[in-house]
Amino acid sequence: MTGPIAASGGPGAPSSGVAAPSSPERAPEGNAGGAENIGREQEDYIAAVADRLSSFLDGKRALLAAVSPDAVQLAAALEHLVTGGKRLRALMCYWGWRGAGGAAGADAVVTAGAALELFQAAALIHDDIIDRSDTRRGQPSVHRRFEGLHDTNNWTLDRHRFGEAAGILAGDLCLSFSEELFSSVGGLLPERAGIQVPGEPRPEQLARNVFNTMRTEVMAGQYLDILEEVAGPTRDPAGAVDRARTILRYKSAKYSMEHPLVLGGALAGGSPALLQGYAAFGLPLGEAFQLRDDVLGVFGDPETTGKPAGDDLREGKRTVLIGYTLSSATAADALFVDRRLGHPDLSSQDIDTIRAILARSGALKATEALIDSYWSSAFAALEALALPELAAQALHALAITAVRRSA
Amino acid sequence: MTGPIAASGGPGAPSSGVAAPSSPERAPEGNAGGAENIGREQEDYIAAVADRLSSFLDGKRALLAAVSPDAVQLAAALEHLVTGGKRLRALMCYWGWRGAGGAAGADAVVTAGAALELFQAAALIHDDIIDRSDTRRGQPSVHRRFEGLHDTNNWTLDRHRFGEAAGILAGDLCLSFSEELFSSVGGLLPERAGIQVPGEPRPEQLARNVFNTMRTEVMAGQYLDILEEVAGPTRDPAGAVDRARTILRYKSAKYSMEHPLVLGGALAGGSPALLQGYAAFGLPLGEAFQLRDDVLGVFGDPETTGKPAGDDLREGKRTVLIGYTLSSATAADALFVDRRLGHPDLSSQDIDTIRAILARSGALKATEALIDSYWSSAFAALEALALPELAAQALHALAITAVRRSA
Repeated sequence: MTGPIAASGGPGAPSSGVAAPSSPERAPEGNAGGAENIGREQEDYIAAVADRLSSFLDGKRALLAAVSPDAVQLAAALEHLVTGGKRLRALMCYWGWRGAGGAAGADAVVTAGAALELFQAAALIHDDIIDRSDTRRGQPSVHRRFEGLHDTNNWTLDRHRFGEAAGILAGDLCLSFSEELFSSVGGLLPERAGIQVPGEPRPEQLARNVFNTMRTEVMAGQYLDILEEVAGPTRDPAGAVDRARTILRYKSAKYSMEHPLVLGGALAGGSPALLQGYAAFGLPLGEAFQLRDDVLGVFGDPETTGKPAGDDLREGKRTVLIGYTLSSATAADALFVDRRLGHPDLSSQDIDTIRAILARSGALKATEALIDSYWSSAFAALEALALPELAAQALHALAITAVRRSA
Repeated sequence: MTGPIAASGGPGAPSSGVAAPSSPERAPEGNAGGAENIGREQEDYIAAVADRLSSFLDGKRALLAAVSPDAVQLAAALEHLVTGGKRLRALMCYWGWRGAGGAAGADAVVTAGAALELFQAAALIHDDIIDRSDTRRGQPSVHRRFEGLHDTNNWTLDRHRFGEAAGILAGDLCLSFSEELFSSVGGLLPERAGIQVPGEPRPEQLARNVFNTMRTEVMAGQYLDILEEVAGPTRDPAGAVDRARTILRYKSAKYSMEHPLVLGGALAGGSPALLQGYAAFGLPLGEAFQLRDDVLGVFGDPETTGKPAGDDLREGKRTVLIGYTLSSATAADALFVDRRLGHPDLSSQDIDTIRAILARSGALKATEALIDSYWSSAFAALEALALPELAAQALHALAITAVRRSA
């Protein structure tokens, strides 16, 4: 389950450098002035989300301190985590909102973005326990942080059990906090008397539906991901690509791109046609985004990705890339890969061999072709959307960054 | 962390037999007719909560099936869990609602009760992972269930890791479902034009505040509980009782009794004075309830509690009972207990010795005295509340069942 997680959590990726187009030619019909405006507005938004998270967590820290000074350790663990990251989901939400006519920097979309970031943080905390990851965003992962606390204080019994238990609870708390922030969004929306059509759901209800669906689908996708790790080797290799595409769609594509974008649009009272257009753009973009992540997870430069080479192979990720390999490599090559996936002690020679198999089987090429195809669909859908110029440019730039990255 | 969990999850405790007074003399100013009315109304409510849970999970099952037939396993795991239990928190919420003038069997309080039950189920799922519990409500715990699925299907890699990972995700899903249901409660409340005082928070906002506080405090309490297991032996024994009382208050007393009761009252538009009165009753009642649980966790009959004798000792629960022992036993006795707590391989002879120490140190007596004192406070607070007769009788009966139980 490194997918959406690693994609949004690589250390050394400064949040301000992610989505603002760094050169004019990256914007479709862009100009340097437009790119600057986008960059400034995004920076303001990201800063406002960070402030919102910080003041929210300050309040929680006080509540936890009132329970016991010891309980503040939970808040401290979350504060460390939410100060980093690319804010990818918050930004998708923001431009979805702006594209639907929402005002720049409005409280409602700042709070919704903060809720999405807390949800992502909660997913990361539990994901790192599930994947036994030691680090996150260049820091110890949350459960390792609690293990460290156990060490420092010379506590008794099992440090590992304590770290894991505390990590489970910290993730649960973070999930609750995300919900708490999200439930306050409706109250921050401006009154839209006259816009509201009787019998139609209100914007906050539409956004709530997206939020609910997002959570259920991403957890289902994560479950399918861990299931495929253990069940994949016993299932028909001819179905491996389809299974991997289902996982990718729910665990990552919808969650990272489509849902936050549609959610932002819904909050701003976007029309059903606009929200459908957002989905038509966001889903293939998310699919291309995750496929890029899968390729980087095997072929990425550890210097750039911040993850050990071949980490996804050791974890046994059965990605689309692997699916293509199992169905198109020679029998001997397929068997070689199938038997080695998921073994934490894979040698660097094994990893080199698997990389060579991925290349010579045509799996890498097929994956790149799929990325191109999703990319084309996404951009066609974006072109077809009648968006304000700034939002169109910003989404275009975000999309390029998501798919054409090397980390 | 067996506290609130075991208290509400012992197998063999039929939900219908929990709270309806079984004999007239149990009701304060009761009569057989009143008890019958309470029993019938509670049964109707419990059945409505079960229906609500069932139809909600049916919808989720369909959504998960649309993702993948494999994802339905997540819904199945939850369905098993939420069909059991005493519905203690839902009942507290219900009588809080009724006591504040809410209508019998109203949709809003049925949905709020279902949300509380799902929250409890989520806590149980993660708690069983943390405590490595194999069973829950007479069935395999959720993570063990997924381990079993791994066995049955002859999947590969580590069955234990898979079970735990799937259990973490199932608990997260259940936590999200709880929030989803709770967020729909406001829309089910009857319009109260005229009752609403301008500038004062609306009932759903008050209830939301309670729900948010409840989640944060119970997770903080659970964290303090696992912390005390590892840190307790390194800390001043003179503070052990105070630390245990803090854990008990947040992890159990407020969560199991005070918060659900106040939440129900808030939803029905109860006055601040009524809600304060509920808290004054619910908190000491919850404290007595959990102390009773702690005593049963060491001295309870396995036949009745459904848990192995001395299970809390093997898990290393540092309860108030243990706190009294550490601060009042002889040095040799205190050391004996301190060194053995939390060791899973405690012999039955060790357990007998610890029981004897708990008795001869006066710790058991002190704990029973504390139960009596909380019990008196709770009942004085209940007497002071001006409640409709039926609600007063029902809360009285619930309170007796909670504190005077043997399982």
